Amino acid sequence: MSPMIETSDGSPVLLDRDGEIAILRLHRPDRLNAFTDEMCELLLTAMDRIDADDSVRAVVLTGSGRGFCAGADLAAGGDTFVLGDDPVTGGAPADQGGLVALRFYRSTKPIIAAINGPAAGVGVTMTLSADIRIASDTAKFGFVFTRRGLVPEACSSWFLPRIVGISTALEWTLGGRMVGADEARERGLVREIVPAGQVLERALELARELVGGTAPVSVALTRGLMWRMLGAASPEVAHRADSLGIHLRGVSGDVREGVESFLAKRDPQFPDRVSAGLPDLFGAAEPAT
Amino acid sequence: MSPMIETSDGSPVLLDRDGEIAILRLHRPDRLNAFTDEMCELLLTAMDRIDADDSVRAVVLTGSGRGFCAGADLAAGGDTFVLGDDPVTGGAPADQGGLVALRFYRSTKPIIAAINGPAAGVGVTMTLSADIRIASDTAKFGFVFTRRGLVPEACSSWFLPRIVGISTALEWTLGGRMVGADEARERGLVREIVPAGQVLERALELARELVGGTAPVSVALTRGLMWRMLGAASPEVAHRADSLGIHLRGVSGDVREGVESFLAKRDPQFPDRVSAGLPDLFGAAEPAT
Amino acid sequence: MSPMIETSDGSPVLLDRDGEIAILRLHRPDRLNAFTDEMCELLLTAMDRIDADDSVRAVVLTGSGRGFCAGADLAAGGDTFVLGDDPVTGGAPADQGGLVALRFYRSTKPIIAAINGPAAGVGVTMTLSADIRIASDTAKFGFVFTRRGLVPEACSSWFLPRIVGISTALEWTLGGRMVGADEARERGLVREIVPAGQVLERALELARELVGGTAPVSVALTRGLMWRMLGAASPEVAHRADSLGIHLRGVSGDVREGVESFLAKRDPQFPDRVSAGLPDLFGAAEPAT
Repeated sequence: MSPMIETSDGSPVLLDRDGEIAILRLHRPDRLNAFTDEMCELLLTAMDRIDADDSVRAVVLTGSGRGFCAGADLAAGGDTFVLGDDPVTGGAPADQGGLVALRFYRSTKPIIAAINGPAAGVGVTMTLSADIRIASDTAKFGFVFTRRGLVPEACSSWFLPRIVGISTALEWTLGGRMVGADEARERGLVREIVPAGQVLERALELARELVGGTAPVSVALTRGLMWRMLGAASPEVAHRADSLGIHLRGVSGDVREGVESFLAKRDPQFPDRVSAGLPDLFGAAEPAT
Repeated sequence: MSPMIETSDGSPVLLDRDGEIAILRLHRPDRLNAFTDEMCELLLTAMDRIDADDSVRAVVLTGSGRGFCAGADLAAGGDTFVLGDDPVTGGAPADQGGLVALRFYRSTKPIIAAINGPAAGVGVTMTLSADIRIASDTAKFGFVFTRRGLVPEACSSWFLPRIVGISTALEWTLGGRMVGADEARERGLVREIVPAGQVLERALELARELVGGTAPVSVALTRGLMWRMLGAASPEVAHRADSLGIHLRGVSGDVREGVESFLAKRDPQFPDRVSAGLPDLFGAAEPAT
Repeated sequence: MSPMIETSDGSPVLLDRDGEIAILRLHRPDRLNAFTDEMCELLLTAMDRIDADDSVRAVVLTGSGRGFCAGADLAAGGDTFVLGDDPVTGGAPADQGGLVALRFYRSTKPIIAAINGPAAGVGVTMTLSADIRIASDTAKFGFVFTRRGLVPEACSSWFLPRIVGISTALEWTLGGRMVGADEARERGLVREIVPAGQVLERALELARELVGGTAPVSVALTRGLMWRMLGAASPEVAHRADSLGIHLRGVSGDVREGVESFLAKRDPQFPDRVSAGLPDLFGAAEPAT
């Protein structure tokens, strides 16, 4: 693994890579990787770099040390959530967990969360727009907002019921108890549980399986379609996006190579690159939200 | 348990309480608690009282006797569903099952359905906007509408697929067969099955777990967020509601107490009350429906 | 079984029936039933005939030979997906898989997919708007689009996450690997696995169970409600449709017969027919999409 961007010694986010896979690491191990303003900023910046780099095909998100993320850093005590008005709008400032969750949602590369230990508050909600979550057997999950007088954030009221179903989402967020790794797997929050210490390696393996033999532009468009249509009012909306997508991709070098390599039973070499720009399949398909 | 409101001997709905938990009971045991106009009215009234009473933290909905609810009372035979036009609009009158389901949906307190025996028609659909359903091993469920020449009601076409998935929802409602307790649990309609006679006690236990250590205002807002965002077009809608919610709650006494009690490892004493009014997190977040 | 429509020897779609159940068969067994323009046209035509024939109560969709459908016919090699502009709009032509999926979605009769062998590309996505899917133990499923340089089609970005959940939908469509029958059942893509050679018989059995004792008009309206409300923004939308549906059906001969036969414990004989027209429950309920 070689460093992907410069990170100072005390940086709360590290960005490394293993071959085609970027490793995005929450890095405040002495604080169980508690979430800060700086961590938020660095996560957004790192995702921009990842999206811009065609040599990266997928992302693994994990934490340093024994925890994944303990949630918001509470060093400011009872004043932690006293936020000023937004300097531009004068209204509520954007929820930071939501900025991260939406940035993951808009990623052009698949994201696998390798949850290596306890995840609470924004520490778990920020992972909900990852494509796959796996967890260490030492992980546990706390949607603890009602126990702090808060509300769920990071768009978790939108993502969580779509992942685990509304009944489980309500049970976990209303009561706020800690949920163990086995229950998280049974209810569908995580795909699988692996022994402590093996979660990063397993996530890298899954990431390589996802991207091997697939066209980067197709992966980016597929990810966009799946997440965007999850909220669409009808299949007709998807039909318009699909029709445009098939029409545009059909004449691409990627499709020619995809079909010809398949018929010749050889590995494909897809020519198209995400950095060259992606067609907007949704502009004509969806009303503004 | 002490009575919460006066109920005449023959009242088809009883409202009692056990500590912080209201017990709302369908009470026509000689008719398997078949649903009537009066039952509808009393359920709506009871929910208004529950919402207005800060000393109530959650609701358990159950039935008297060996059944939960046999569905619409068919005493009028083939004329049962001959309804006049709505006196105000001149069009179709509001479906009564829907009025109850929507009232539960809008509750500020968690609702646990303790399904103590067979539930058919509106008897099961009215429970779909409860947060958790548990059932007696004597329970069975009938989405029997196609067998009576009707259509599913009580907004069940919206709620049921979001609870058990579209494939199961179609299978159950198209065919209308009775579904056993085990199948209901496997498909996710109910959280768990308990021995006959223990379902109320177990529901009270779950209700106490949900509300213990949580802030009433946070619970009400969380419940609203989860249910409302289940239909929202995109996570951006949730992000706007979250940002406002975190901003408003962040300066509250509840959050100060929530964080300080957590850091001090003591039980919280949340000061805010639902009856003082809840902020509208959705006004700016959602287009009118 | 008797033929339902004339089919020439080489027709790529066969339409037969078994009592009240239509059997719609993809029929290019020497090509693993690969999808062609002509197959698309014949599927749409067959569905129109099925919907117009009151003596048909349900549809079983299956394939001839050892495969279900291998996906788009790739006989044109790298030019397979080079499509001209739409002759009417001048833009992207309608995705053909989407035309089939939407036609199934709008069916007035339940559809059971009897997946008798491998299904890839449009071969699996076209089944997602069937109400129930069962599969042979020889079946496997490939959402292979990213491996060909394409994007998922047939509205699968709308249907698939609503059937198997967003996490599984992303995993399967991003990576494009072949999914075995057992995994498909565990994740909810198919209801059950049956031994090879028994899948058609089992599908006919399920179809007979769905329609026995049910009112055809109620089945058609229920199917419409469930699928349409799956994308609706709120339960209030369903409430308006339900209220109208109960009001209109309440005075029907079907409801009178449904209630009276139930009270008399005899089999119902429902008088109403789908071909006489169905009320529009959605016109006033939903904004245009």
